[in-house]
Amino acid sequence: MSLLVVGSVALDSVETPFGKAEDVLGGSATFFSASACHLSPVQLVGVVGSDYPMDQLRPLAERRVDLAGLERAEGRSFRWRGRYRHDLNVAETLETHLGVFSNFRPKIPAQFRGAPFVFLGNIDPRLQLDVLTQVEKPTLVACDTMNFWIESRRPELLELLGRVDLVTLNDGEARQLSEKYNLVKAARWIMSRGPKLVIIKKGEHGAFMFTEREVFFAPAYPLEEVFDPTGAGDAFAGGFMGYLARCRDLSEANLRRAVVYGSAMGSFAVEKFSIQRLLEVTPAEVAARVRAFHRLVSFEQELEA
Amino acid sequence: MSLLVVGSVALDSVETPFGKAEDVLGGSATFFSASACHLSPVQLVGVVGSDYPMDQLRPLAERRVDLAGLERAEGRSFRWRGRYRHDLNVAETLETHLGVFSNFRPKIPAQFRGAPFVFLGNIDPRLQLDVLTQVEKPTLVACDTMNFWIESRRPELLELLGRVDLVTLNDGEARQLSEKYNLVKAARWIMSRGPKLVIIKKGEHGAFMFTEREVFFAPAYPLEEVFDPTGAGDAFAGGFMGYLARCRDLSEANLRRAVVYGSAMGSFAVEKFSIQRLLEVTPAEVAARVRAFHRLVSFEQELEA
Repeated sequence: MSLLVVGSVALDSVETPFGKAEDVLGGSATFFSASACHLSPVQLVGVVGSDYPMDQLRPLAERRVDLAGLERAEGRSFRWRGRYRHDLNVAETLETHLGVFSNFRPKIPAQFRGAPFVFLGNIDPRLQLDVLTQVEKPTLVACDTMNFWIESRRPELLELLGRVDLVTLNDGEARQLSEKYNLVKAARWIMSRGPKLVIIKKGEHGAFMFTEREVFFAPAYPLEEVFDPTGAGDAFAGGFMGYLARCRDLSEANLRRAVVYGSAMGSFAVEKFSIQRLLEVTPAEVAARVRAFHRLVSFEQELEA
Repeated sequence: MSLLVVGSVALDSVETPFGKAEDVLGGSATFFSASACHLSPVQLVGVVGSDYPMDQLRPLAERRVDLAGLERAEGRSFRWRGRYRHDLNVAETLETHLGVFSNFRPKIPAQFRGAPFVFLGNIDPRLQLDVLTQVEKPTLVACDTMNFWIESRRPELLELLGRVDLVTLNDGEARQLSEKYNLVKAARWIMSRGPKLVIIKKGEHGAFMFTEREVFFAPAYPLEEVFDPTGAGDAFAGGFMGYLARCRDLSEANLRRAVVYGSAMGSFAVEKFSIQRLLEVTPAEVAARVRAFHRLVSFEQELEA
């Protein structure tokens, strides 16, 4: 039932048109876990520096996130500083300090190796491949990536594609990786390299899931207040994978519901800074948001159509 | 049952990454009509110059588009020349020659004045207001607009908003008109000025319809080949209004279906240059595309959710 995530655990400093936050919890594994733990127990593997405010992770530990794989290394934690202007779809990176993350070598604790669901957050594809040598027989392995790895580690990334079931990436990354502008063609190209499932995230414009024969689309929820988009993609992945880990059902119908759970969790993530809203959200709120997504896109076909 | 459209009838020269077309049928009223006529009889009001290839309009006349309101004036027809690069969402205008369109003063023929459904294409808001003095008691009046009028005719446009039931505009225009970046807020602002319905078109990212209490979203259909996006928004409006004119039912459920018909017709429009694909499309193809939209967004909620 467990869901293993390997990724970054960072400190973010973020400025949006609506406010500022300094050194708040961030990183792909952090957002993923804060989202997924609403649906499934999570096992987190990552690294932080000796300066990390470990007590701030307690709410995650209290919510079924097992931090036994979170290494504490001598040195500074990964820090990211970014800014969003009115177009909240575009993050402007002001500073990145990798700190201890630059020497990260994921070590999967023995008790995590049997996890049936594995999410390889956005790290060096060589490390993502290395994680796969440490796990047993996962039911589903998903990976994320980014422009930096597509450019600098293309051969390793292509090797990884042959060994995962699902890739999540954003529209720009899908185009860059496939060298195809059209997203349907980009997804088909990626699937031809191995993965049976591709999810292309378009931020405020929603997400496509491509399966063997079908395409599913879920919009981003039209919120009146988007406060801070940082982590929305990781919260999406957490909701998606958490839902699959909860149901252990990889049917088309369930994969579609998983995308909607991902979209719902992503829509909560952006309502406050850091993982704040994800920590607050209740099961009733999640269920209500899923119903709201259903209402947002539902239409009845005419009988004669 | 009839649907009146007032707008431009032009000659377009278009270049896309996939080909070129010179002096082909274009203009908002042309695309609107070629789309709407699949669903309802259309009455077109516009103007062309003495150089317009009238014989090329015959396919429209044969498909229930009444051209009795298409004035032929001495002079050159409205011509637009544009280019799309790989981002097909962005048109680059190379030349615009208004010709006889610059003196266009819509005259609604007596037999058109009772039309229950009226679409005021993107023309000077003063002319859109003037059309409203010429029609009797329409059931639903919709208008489109553009950045140029939002800047140069704001007072008249605001007056118009108080006199129409529905506004269709794209996301940039909604932001410009409302001076609000968030699209939910932009739509609510526009509705506060009069219209009960607002449709915000996001091109390849789909369309939102805001009604009094609800929001509906329909994605753009994920085509593998988008050939030429010119006219997609007008084809959308034609499918939407044509469907309403066919059903004469303004319930929420029917408005949602109308958005899907609009999206379906928009998705056909982009498959070839000009109105070529819209002229070819069969009722079976329209029905199949609507079913494909349903499949694209459908998910079943869990019983316990």
